[in-house]
Amino acid sequence: MSSPLDRAAAEALDAADPLAAFVDEFERPAGVIYLNGNSLGPAPKAALTRVAEAARQEWATDLITSWNKAGWFDLPYRLGDRLAGLIGAGPGEVVLTDGTGLNLYRVVSAALALRPDRRVIVMEGSNFPTNNYVVQGLVQSLGQGHQIRFAELDDLAAAIDDDVAAVVLTHAHYKSAHVLNMTGLTAKAHAHGALAIWDLCHSAGALEVDLNGCDADFAVGCTYKYLNGGPGSPAFLFVATRHQATATQPMTGWWGHDAPFAFERDYRPATGIGRMLTGTQPILSLVATEAGIDMIARAGTGAIRAKSLALGQLFQSLMGERLSDAGFILTSPAHPNDRGGHIAFDHASGYPIMKALIARGVIGDFRAPATLRFGFAPLHLRFVDVWDAVDRLAGIIHQGVWRDPAYAAVDAVT
Amino acid sequence: MSSPLDRAAAEALDAADPLAAFVDEFERPAGVIYLNGNSLGPAPKAALTRVAEAARQEWATDLITSWNKAGWFDLPYRLGDRLAGLIGAGPGEVVLTDGTGLNLYRVVSAALALRPDRRVIVMEGSNFPTNNYVVQGLVQSLGQGHQIRFAELDDLAAAIDDDVAAVVLTHAHYKSAHVLNMTGLTAKAHAHGALAIWDLCHSAGALEVDLNGCDADFAVGCTYKYLNGGPGSPAFLFVATRHQATATQPMTGWWGHDAPFAFERDYRPATGIGRMLTGTQPILSLVATEAGIDMIARAGTGAIRAKSLALGQLFQSLMGERLSDAGFILTSPAHPNDRGGHIAFDHASGYPIMKALIARGVIGDFRAPATLRFGFAPLHLRFVDVWDAVDRLAGIIHQGVWRDPAYAAVDAVT
Repeated sequence: MSSPLDRAAAEALDAADPLAAFVDEFERPAGVIYLNGNSLGPAPKAALTRVAEAARQEWATDLITSWNKAGWFDLPYRLGDRLAGLIGAGPGEVVLTDGTGLNLYRVVSAALALRPDRRVIVMEGSNFPTNNYVVQGLVQSLGQGHQIRFAELDDLAAAIDDDVAAVVLTHAHYKSAHVLNMTGLTAKAHAHGALAIWDLCHSAGALEVDLNGCDADFAVGCTYKYLNGGPGSPAFLFVATRHQATATQPMTGWWGHDAPFAFERDYRPATGIGRMLTGTQPILSLVATEAGIDMIARAGTGAIRAKSLALGQLFQSLMGERLSDAGFILTSPAHPNDRGGHIAFDHASGYPIMKALIARGVIGDFRAPATLRFGFAPLHLRFVDVWDAVDRLAGIIHQGVWRDPAYAAVDAVT
Repeated sequence: MSSPLDRAAAEALDAADPLAAFVDEFERPAGVIYLNGNSLGPAPKAALTRVAEAARQEWATDLITSWNKAGWFDLPYRLGDRLAGLIGAGPGEVVLTDGTGLNLYRVVSAALALRPDRRVIVMEGSNFPTNNYVVQGLVQSLGQGHQIRFAELDDLAAAIDDDVAAVVLTHAHYKSAHVLNMTGLTAKAHAHGALAIWDLCHSAGALEVDLNGCDADFAVGCTYKYLNGGPGSPAFLFVATRHQATATQPMTGWWGHDAPFAFERDYRPATGIGRMLTGTQPILSLVATEAGIDMIARAGTGAIRAKSLALGQLFQSLMGERLSDAGFILTSPAHPNDRGGHIAFDHASGYPIMKALIARGVIGDFRAPATLRFGFAPLHLRFVDVWDAVDRLAGIIHQGVWRDPAYAAVDAVT
């Protein structure tokens, strides 16, 4: 009987995988094992077709008539409704527009205006720092003395008190993949009269997310990671129905006007989530998102999460078997249920190791000072990919390949 | 000797046109005369090639490595520098990012912060109203008692006094095409200690614009009209070098951080115009802009303006000859030098007339309540196109085609 960790075992897992067929719906460059879907998802073949069609038919051929013929005006709503089902939101609660940071600016503005007597915003300072930057910029612009109260992990709940206007938290940590208790922290915020804003960049399309089930107030997230929407594809924004009549945002523009084609002089906010929109959207990037969202919907987030955990467990087991004394320190939560779609290890020579690994076709990424991230987005990954990835990594470590000075040179973007 | 207004005369103008060859660089759908480049520019063939390449090579094949390999991080700067030359700006003064409204929000925020003791913003209320909406939203968010002082045309200069923090004006009017005196109004603003912010949506790529020549402080504009960047392609933003060390904007994000890949907890603005950026850009829509910018640069805005005026004058002459008593009232400035790239006529039955015209392949657009707009973006238009357009319009009017009830039905987007 073969060892459970040899390549044949991985092949057997693929043979039994109910999601195996999705792999062929992606472009998969030859020789590459892509463990970075947590940063930029790979391209669904249907997305490439759709972008080409939008460029050639909607732009080049139908020109301005595409506003009606191709339904450009409805795109943020229509795609938002499709995405809503993946994150526990209802129809009319989600739009796709602009970037995650801009959307965070909108919903935090809205939340602070809904809690005018409170001045504290709770955030996890170690999480993706652009969220800190966005809130810092907003606070400075408002000039009303708001303060960010930073706390981490188990200290977050205790940081929420009656002074808090909003908690602004990222569901799955960009670096460690630690998943916060969305239900518990939202309830804690509500118990103190605060609003809960969730950043789903590292969980939408990777985990089961139930915004309405846990009574979240606002949420944002990107579509270019686990949703495979393409580089910099427009982000999403969720406003719970109960807030839509009263939530306001400062970047008021024509697409969020109650009568967007009446060209009235003064702003009147659209009814519903439309008021969160500002102006014309990047159509080619926006249409690219539909294929990925559709694929996640067909697969189901439950099945996706199950396979992601299985891929991650295989990776972790193989790392333990083949590289247990090579200096890799698991910095993701030890228990799979506590982490999102990727696994992080620290290594003192993480940077050259990752560069050497990428040069051998296994693409993960590196976050300073020492973290290697490996993403397990299951629709485009096979179990044998995981096996082969660890095999290549073991080769690099055991042969000392990463010590080549070429791998020490720092790239512009890491 | 033939009449100067017969089709042969138009053919002769094409034969002598130094920009004639550019027409073949565009996709031109069969049977369509496109007089709406002032709303959505047509597709440069090179832009379609570039989008396909970015989708297939940069996204699908090179994946995350494209941040370095394809220079994604530098795109807002690199494209901004290319665009700068078309609007009288220098290197490092322009970036491409997000939408026009969001960029306007940024630069008006910056201007108000630079004039903390002043509370008045001068705007032309009749111009594209999303600019009003953006400033109204900002003013409300700031809660510091700023007021918009609306004025029109010749009354604008008188509206600028020592209470004014900033004038926020659109260079060429979206409806009438009236061109404001950028030099004079900027000087008037400066004489009163105010800052001048220009919206170039209807002038970048259509007219000669000299931001530094007239000492403008800030500017914004879209790339999807005369710059032919594709539907909703990212907008641009100009900050004069002298303001770059002190100008701040509230939507602070990682792309505008001084050390964007260091993942520091707190925001520190980038030196230079980079601080105007927030987050990840829609790459497919962003790369689409390069071909159009390149084409305008090769043609030169002087030659473009000259041909645009000639096309417009031909149109106006033909309208006078063939449709002088059909109820069309010129609402653009009578003198060509006073108007931008399009010509507007009011007509009591403007809506069904434009629909009937579009059904016959001549695409202009309609702005309520009665305005027909015809755009003369010269790189993709021939003089015979103008002749044929008026010929088709005359046919529709003289045969009463537009009275067909089918043309009365209002589309979702007008």
